[in-house]
Amino acid sequence: MKKSALQKVRAEYQPKLPNDLQGDVKIKLGEATESVSDQEAIKSLFPHTYGMPVVQFEQDENPQRVEEPFNVGIILSGGQAPGGHNVVSGIFDGLKKLNKENRLYGFLMGPGGFINHQYMELTAGYIADYRNTGGFDIIGSGRTKLESPEQFEAGLKILKELNIKALVIIGGDDSNTNAAVLAEYYKNIGAGVQVIGVPKTIDGDLKNNWIETSFGFDTACKVYSEVIGNIQRDCNSAKKYYHFIKLMGRSASHIALECALETQPNYCLISEEVQAKRMTLDNIVSSICYVISERAKLGWNFGTILIPEGLIEFIPSMKSLIGELNDVLAAHGEEFEGLDEASKLEAIAKYLTAANAELYLSLPKTIALQLSLDRDSHGNVQVSLIETESLLSEMVAKRLAEMAEEGEYSGKFAAQHHFFGYEGRCADPTNFDADYTYALGYNAAMLINAGLTGYMSSVRNLTDSPENWVCGGIPITMMMNMERRHGEMKPVIQKALVDLKGRPYLKYASMRETLALNTLYQYPGPIQYFGPSEVCDRPSMTLLLEHNKEI
Amino acid sequence: MKKSALQKVRAEYQPKLPNDLQGDVKIKLGEATESVSDQEAIKSLFPHTYGMPVVQFEQDENPQRVEEPFNVGIILSGGQAPGGHNVVSGIFDGLKKLNKENRLYGFLMGPGGFINHQYMELTAGYIADYRNTGGFDIIGSGRTKLESPEQFEAGLKILKELNIKALVIIGGDDSNTNAAVLAEYYKNIGAGVQVIGVPKTIDGDLKNNWIETSFGFDTACKVYSEVIGNIQRDCNSAKKYYHFIKLMGRSASHIALECALETQPNYCLISEEVQAKRMTLDNIVSSICYVISERAKLGWNFGTILIPEGLIEFIPSMKSLIGELNDVLAAHGEEFEGLDEASKLEAIAKYLTAANAELYLSLPKTIALQLSLDRDSHGNVQVSLIETESLLSEMVAKRLAEMAEEGEYSGKFAAQHHFFGYEGRCADPTNFDADYTYALGYNAAMLINAGLTGYMSSVRNLTDSPENWVCGGIPITMMMNMERRHGEMKPVIQKALVDLKGRPYLKYASMRETLALNTLYQYPGPIQYFGPSEVCDRPSMTLLLEHNKEI
Repeated sequence: MKKSALQKVRAEYQPKLPNDLQGDVKIKLGEATESVSDQEAIKSLFPHTYGMPVVQFEQDENPQRVEEPFNVGIILSGGQAPGGHNVVSGIFDGLKKLNKENRLYGFLMGPGGFINHQYMELTAGYIADYRNTGGFDIIGSGRTKLESPEQFEAGLKILKELNIKALVIIGGDDSNTNAAVLAEYYKNIGAGVQVIGVPKTIDGDLKNNWIETSFGFDTACKVYSEVIGNIQRDCNSAKKYYHFIKLMGRSASHIALECALETQPNYCLISEEVQAKRMTLDNIVSSICYVISERAKLGWNFGTILIPEGLIEFIPSMKSLIGELNDVLAAHGEEFEGLDEASKLEAIAKYLTAANAELYLSLPKTIALQLSLDRDSHGNVQVSLIETESLLSEMVAKRLAEMAEEGEYSGKFAAQHHFFGYEGRCADPTNFDADYTYALGYNAAMLINAGLTGYMSSVRNLTDSPENWVCGGIPITMMMNMERRHGEMKPVIQKALVDLKGRPYLKYASMRETLALNTLYQYPGPIQYFGPSEVCDRPSMTLLLEHNKEI
Repeated sequence: MKKSALQKVRAEYQPKLPNDLQGDVKIKLGEATESVSDQEAIKSLFPHTYGMPVVQFEQDENPQRVEEPFNVGIILSGGQAPGGHNVVSGIFDGLKKLNKENRLYGFLMGPGGFINHQYMELTAGYIADYRNTGGFDIIGSGRTKLESPEQFEAGLKILKELNIKALVIIGGDDSNTNAAVLAEYYKNIGAGVQVIGVPKTIDGDLKNNWIETSFGFDTACKVYSEVIGNIQRDCNSAKKYYHFIKLMGRSASHIALECALETQPNYCLISEEVQAKRMTLDNIVSSICYVISERAKLGWNFGTILIPEGLIEFIPSMKSLIGELNDVLAAHGEEFEGLDEASKLEAIAKYLTAANAELYLSLPKTIALQLSLDRDSHGNVQVSLIETESLLSEMVAKRLAEMAEEGEYSGKFAAQHHFFGYEGRCADPTNFDADYTYALGYNAAMLINAGLTGYMSSVRNLTDSPENWVCGGIPITMMMNMERRHGEMKPVIQKALVDLKGRPYLKYASMRETLALNTLYQYPGPIQYFGPSEVCDRPSMTLLLEHNKEI
């Protein structure tokens, strides 16, 4: 592997390990726990792993035990997030600290490699090339859902063959839910295999009172903020375009919100707000046109607008339309084949309720066709393929033209579109994510050594410096509630949406009017690894605000 | 202006000034010069500014003169490029070094501000906020072409009003050509105003034997390479997409080539090669499908493909089609109005020659419609709006499906599209660009002080460390030749295309097969400002190779 100049130097970085994990480690048990809600239901589904205590590690001045060697397997599950490689190296170093004979195996390309017995041993030499780098290419990742007993049994075979005592699943909320189910399953059958989860997702929606943030969010947002800042500088230099910038985050708007705090764009949509205020597509278009027309009065025909990827699904009326479209296309799909585009739209609209038909026919034609044609393997409309940034800018252009005719707007409007996603998921981790993931991994090794299962690796107090981070484990069942998924009630980890009463959102909301009617862009610049701490080590603004710090 | 953490620290950076510009400076005159070709024609068009010597600066141990105070005006012309703000601060510091009474004025929003007398004085306090930052927002930029005597006279009024002795035009090849015309005009009428050019463009196509690189190329390519590297890491982790990545650069492929050297993608198209080999769109699609099908045989259904923005215009057959479409749409435009899309395409095709009609109808429908509908204010097809990355991936998908039917391909193909342009034009400059632009600006002040006009600021020996850079001025007429532009022969600075016999291209060409049939991605990571010199100060690979250095 030929390395870039930065990679060569960055490979030498030694992540800061919290004091509590240095030297020998002993465990402190907390009180028994309850799930966040639906306690009876969760308890009955997880009889062996419900109610376990929160645990915390501290330095052990008088270690007694000699640790027996053991083997561990890991799975990278779902979308990439910066820092995954440091979780692996943290686990590895933790295992080797416990006993040089310990071994680490990686299952290839996600849960699929576990089920199909594709794996490799991760050695010191192999891991060395991946320390402090982005990506999941060390063993690959995949989206196979690990949820059926057949899969659990298939996996158990290879665990037994490799004499693996514990499996670490690095994933988002669904993967950690599945880790809890697997832990319960293995405990129930007496398989003798522990399961530990590690909270990963750039989307930032796996967090709660015990998990302060998921790893990767910090780095991804900083990459997006870098390029948004660059675009804003261009915007403010050329003064002729509105940049519609879509950002990853289907289920929650944490990324858009963090980037808005970092870069101070003229407008940022927050899906959770759209849903809470029951905004229509028309309302959203109006809100953007308000910003544009007010700026035009100030002589500014340029600006930046951030859009969370999942916006469409949070608009109640669009959600209703999409739901009905799914039904209509399932029931009458063949009738629309072979029709030309205009006829197809009309034919489909005839089957929709009046409100949905009106909305459907008001959409730009390309978008309406996208909604009608591209369906996934379950026959559902593929909302993720909709180019929300183009949808909004087309509708805005049309509305502004109407406003101009009525004498309400006299600016010039030209748009540029951007979508940032893949640019950030595999970036080299920031110091924060490099340290955090290394600690999460090292800590996972300690949880395994303590004989625990059904726990998520937890490193807290993250706005303090890394030596003061608090390390331990949280029973995954503690974070669970019952939710309807695909028509069935399921135990799942509550997804963290943007809290409209939380400080990050309120901070942005307090600036929103000022940012719209001024040009106060911030330019965060590229992630730095070698400079002063205030540049290199600063956590996300979301995290700072959530911990009552100022930004 | 609220500043990010990085901006605050980076504001303190003191660009490295070449030894020759330190302290007092004296001038060395070289031999009289000739233009690169068409000497007689150029000489007759530039009787007062032709044949001037190359000049070089060196430290003056025994300065004799006391410098009289004078005023200078500057214009930022055309697209943004990282480092423009440091050109301004370099000029400012150079002027103040010569005489504290010297003043600097900035014309607002490009040449338009010069013609319309919109300007501001640039003071130490105002400039301080922009040192080492990207963007042209210090005074704004614009694309008005400064080429008519009326404009020159309008500008002269404000120059006289502000007692400005010299005008600095920071721009690309066209703007520097216009600077030469203006210098000649002012000298001819005895206006007493000097004109100095500064070589700017991220595209990298303003370079020659005397101008080693234009500023901004280094930074822009490093931003693009950062995000391409991140995408490649994602690509190699998920192993399920082909990423088609379009990069800025309409007239030349230097950016795509530099990014290919930096990131080692599986394939990079070079427009100049396409033109030289008279490749058709079909050839290009075949060449991509070859890479994809060979990788599929190795079990890899993922990869990265870089595409220069100007590709379409370098394909001889597409150029011919576009030329004919321009004529047909001009002559028969109304006939096609109101037709549905399919009929429109057929109606247009009937007016085309057989070869062009065949090509036209073979294009994906959306692209053919784009070519037929969107025309600029001159009635020309807007090639820049064509989504080349989608065009190619659609055609590739179709071809692969055919190959699969014939049993020649059995992989999976899914594509993602990206276009990077605005992300890099206003990034904070790398150390290289920060130093280079500061020296270019400071050097421009010295050229003015030496009483020169019609010169371009030249800083050379750029692969050496900045203290050893060679500073001076090159007569702009020396870089000129006669070219046909809009049907007329005009004196212009030769645009530098990718040299198919040059080391940068040959280096990529030597790796191309290996990069296609392996996965050897490089991950340059984000631009660093504070780390070791080999990370922070390395010039572009193109520049290193052009100077016979290894990469």
